[in-house]
Amino acid sequence: PDVKRGNYGSVRDSDLATFERLLPGRVLTDSLDGYNTDWLKTCRGASQVVLRPKSTEEVSAILKYCNEKKLAVVPQGGNTGLVGGSVSVFDEIVISTQLMNSIISLDEISGTLVCQAGCVLASLEDYLSNHKLTIPVDLGAKGSCHIGGNVATNAGGVRLLRYGSLHGNVLGLEAVLANGEVVDCLSTLRKDNTGYDLKQLFIGSEGTLGIITAVSLNCPQKPEAVSVAFLGCESFQSVLDIFKESRQKLGEVLSAFEFMDSQTMTVAKENLKLRSPIEDYPFYVLIETSGSNGSHDEEKLSQFLEHVMGTGIVQDGTVATEPTKIQNIWSMRERIAEGLMHDGYCYKYDVSLPLQSFYGLVEAMRERMGTMVTRVIGYGHVGDGNLHLNLTSPEYSTEVMDKIEPFLYDWVANHKGSISAEHGLGFKKKNFIYHSKSKSAVRLMKDIKHTFDPNMILNPYKVLPDF
Amino acid sequence: PDVKRGNYGSVRDSDLATFERLLPGRVLTDSLDGYNTDWLKTCRGASQVVLRPKSTEEVSAILKYCNEKKLAVVPQGGNTGLVGGSVSVFDEIVISTQLMNSIISLDEISGTLVCQAGCVLASLEDYLSNHKLTIPVDLGAKGSCHIGGNVATNAGGVRLLRYGSLHGNVLGLEAVLANGEVVDCLSTLRKDNTGYDLKQLFIGSEGTLGIITAVSLNCPQKPEAVSVAFLGCESFQSVLDIFKESRQKLGEVLSAFEFMDSQTMTVAKENLKLRSPIEDYPFYVLIETSGSNGSHDEEKLSQFLEHVMGTGIVQDGTVATEPTKIQNIWSMRERIAEGLMHDGYCYKYDVSLPLQSFYGLVEAMRERMGTMVTRVIGYGHVGDGNLHLNLTSPEYSTEVMDKIEPFLYDWVANHKGSISAEHGLGFKKKNFIYHSKSKSAVRLMKDIKHTFDPNMILNPYKVLPDF
Repeated sequence: PDVKRGNYGSVRDSDLATFERLLPGRVLTDSLDGYNTDWLKTCRGASQVVLRPKSTEEVSAILKYCNEKKLAVVPQGGNTGLVGGSVSVFDEIVISTQLMNSIISLDEISGTLVCQAGCVLASLEDYLSNHKLTIPVDLGAKGSCHIGGNVATNAGGVRLLRYGSLHGNVLGLEAVLANGEVVDCLSTLRKDNTGYDLKQLFIGSEGTLGIITAVSLNCPQKPEAVSVAFLGCESFQSVLDIFKESRQKLGEVLSAFEFMDSQTMTVAKENLKLRSPIEDYPFYVLIETSGSNGSHDEEKLSQFLEHVMGTGIVQDGTVATEPTKIQNIWSMRERIAEGLMHDGYCYKYDVSLPLQSFYGLVEAMRERMGTMVTRVIGYGHVGDGNLHLNLTSPEYSTEVMDKIEPFLYDWVANHKGSISAEHGLGFKKKNFIYHSKSKSAVRLMKDIKHTFDPNMILNPYKVLPDF
Repeated sequence: PDVKRGNYGSVRDSDLATFERLLPGRVLTDSLDGYNTDWLKTCRGASQVVLRPKSTEEVSAILKYCNEKKLAVVPQGGNTGLVGGSVSVFDEIVISTQLMNSIISLDEISGTLVCQAGCVLASLEDYLSNHKLTIPVDLGAKGSCHIGGNVATNAGGVRLLRYGSLHGNVLGLEAVLANGEVVDCLSTLRKDNTGYDLKQLFIGSEGTLGIITAVSLNCPQKPEAVSVAFLGCESFQSVLDIFKESRQKLGEVLSAFEFMDSQTMTVAKENLKLRSPIEDYPFYVLIETSGSNGSHDEEKLSQFLEHVMGTGIVQDGTVATEPTKIQNIWSMRERIAEGLMHDGYCYKYDVSLPLQSFYGLVEAMRERMGTMVTRVIGYGHVGDGNLHLNLTSPEYSTEVMDKIEPFLYDWVANHKGSISAEHGLGFKKKNFIYHSKSKSAVRLMKDIKHTFDPNMILNPYKVLPDF
């Protein structure tokens, strides 16, 4: 989009000297490519400096200084975001949470973890695993993404179906406001009804209201047993029927319900050289169960499979209970984003839709785009009504983009969906907010932004629309 | 507390005429006792008029008028709150949701219910039950409380352990701001990351930021089977040990973990004439499991009981699987609040504490109060770190109150607890907010209040502190 640099200061030598005094040896000014480019390589900033604080106090000192000098900043975690929210648009200063990666405490009885914002998701999972606990959020980028970034973007992922969203699982957080003030809501309590639940505002605000420096998470018991079923079926209606049956028959042990269409499977096979464990079908379903008693779970799963194969809604399927086999099946689903990059450029959409309209969008886009694109694929979290729709072409084309947008967003709005289910708005999608939120809601958001960050230094050009 | 009436208008005949025009036949000015007195009969307001809108548009019209005339209002649902939040302090106009009790829609596949704010909790549960679904919140007042009030106060209750808080289960809501503007966040989607999650601010704001007119809820499958175990043990440490074992052995089917001390049992026996199903012990634990396969759940429960009785942490116990027996056991827990009223006056506290300090507060208060009170009892949701501490005396006594407060709040703050776990702050506890929240957090709350309700007409004298 057309966007003009705001009326912010530019970083001078005297600023660099101050930063160097505040963060000795942790001010980077060279080789900033990795910090300036997003994972999809579709957004490129021109930051001249990256700051790497270790503590909340350091974040506070930096922000206080930047706020006084009107220097714009962009908070950055693992830089795995998909909407250009974690890189600069112009020359905003990058504040990286890379060195804020300490675990602060763990209460094993209640399952409460407190840690700094820069802990990598997979490291937390490993740590908790040693204490028979697990983390309630899981996603493909887990090897790189930071928990602070997960919270700031309200990351969803494959476990949301079972454990719910971060709005329910974050027990507390600490954030630094634009003026350097530390807001301590780092409660470890599951219940606390004393005033407005401020932490909720930071969850999903993509670094525009404050920089999250620490979080407190409710961590469930690590399941004793996990099983995965991979099923093939003839139609999307069958996918929905399988979902309904799985909710009833698998109940509390159902931990993931994902679907892929046959075009998605082609990406896995052709671009990633993965082998499908079953024959070709128009649609595939991945079901995961996890629970405290393996034999109970397997009995539930086999009763369920007997039922859905008996009634003919499932054509073929395989079940895995061994970790390696489970991992292989999950790879097909989790590596799709990587596989798509082999095509050249990927137009990425992440929408929510009521289930009755869910797959209609993929069909509508396929018909509309015809041979203009390499492929149109649909996969995602059926259990959450969350569709990942992706189109690819050898390279970025304005013509293709103009054919996709705003048509796609209008379609989603007309079917009462959300134009961003879990990726957020960031830089790329902010001006489409009115497709999912009312004018009065956006006006309140702007009022809140103004209250929290009057100089607008925090992650400018993101989330809130220009008009 | 000492409190002065704000600079609001008083209701005149011309106002009444306007209300009567907006809500023909639904403006009450006589026999308002039930609306002016809270459930505990400890707060009594002097409202001269009660308005009973049926629609969002009517709520909007009333508020627009009141805001222009600077007439203060108090939203009221089932009026079952315990902190004086739902009755007027002076002559605020009561806006009751009694007649806003329609179900708007139900999606059976995804389990999404949309309804008006005045639906009674138990009615919703009955309705959902016919569709093999259940509601994620349950509490003793379910026969009277309104879902809008539950959301406005972020009600907790016995199912929070299993399904999490309303911050995770409310998918959307509609609220009317002080100026009459309708904020439509009534999404039915499980995921929607488009801008700040405004609905979260209304959840738990006790009617001070807007009046909730409709909600959208994520409803889980109704369990096929429910079992309850009632156990006796020797010490509070045993209660914690039982909790840890139950998390591991019962895992995903554990749906409630409640405790009562022997003094609580005395209330059940003496004041309510209930019969305990087991012998006398210093502590009692109520465990509920619910799941999709009764025989699996019973097997898990019996393996668990065998283990905890074998290791000696449980002395005695009984298991119920029949609805009537289950109901009888739950009654002992759910009717305690009612039983306490037989003593005369009840000083009611609802705090969260880290588990290691949990019961210490009851012991400290018992020692401090000695014979000044009839009894000091502790019970509550161990699984959520939520203690209900109650003291009774024949009638209200300032001397007793001064001995309890602020000592109790200081104790909770010193042990990093919350002074209100699920009841909220309302009128009674607002000035104790700094025991649980920092100055910077409270300042942000005040800024938000000012943004949402500049004339401060919504539920004044509640939630936010005077100073």
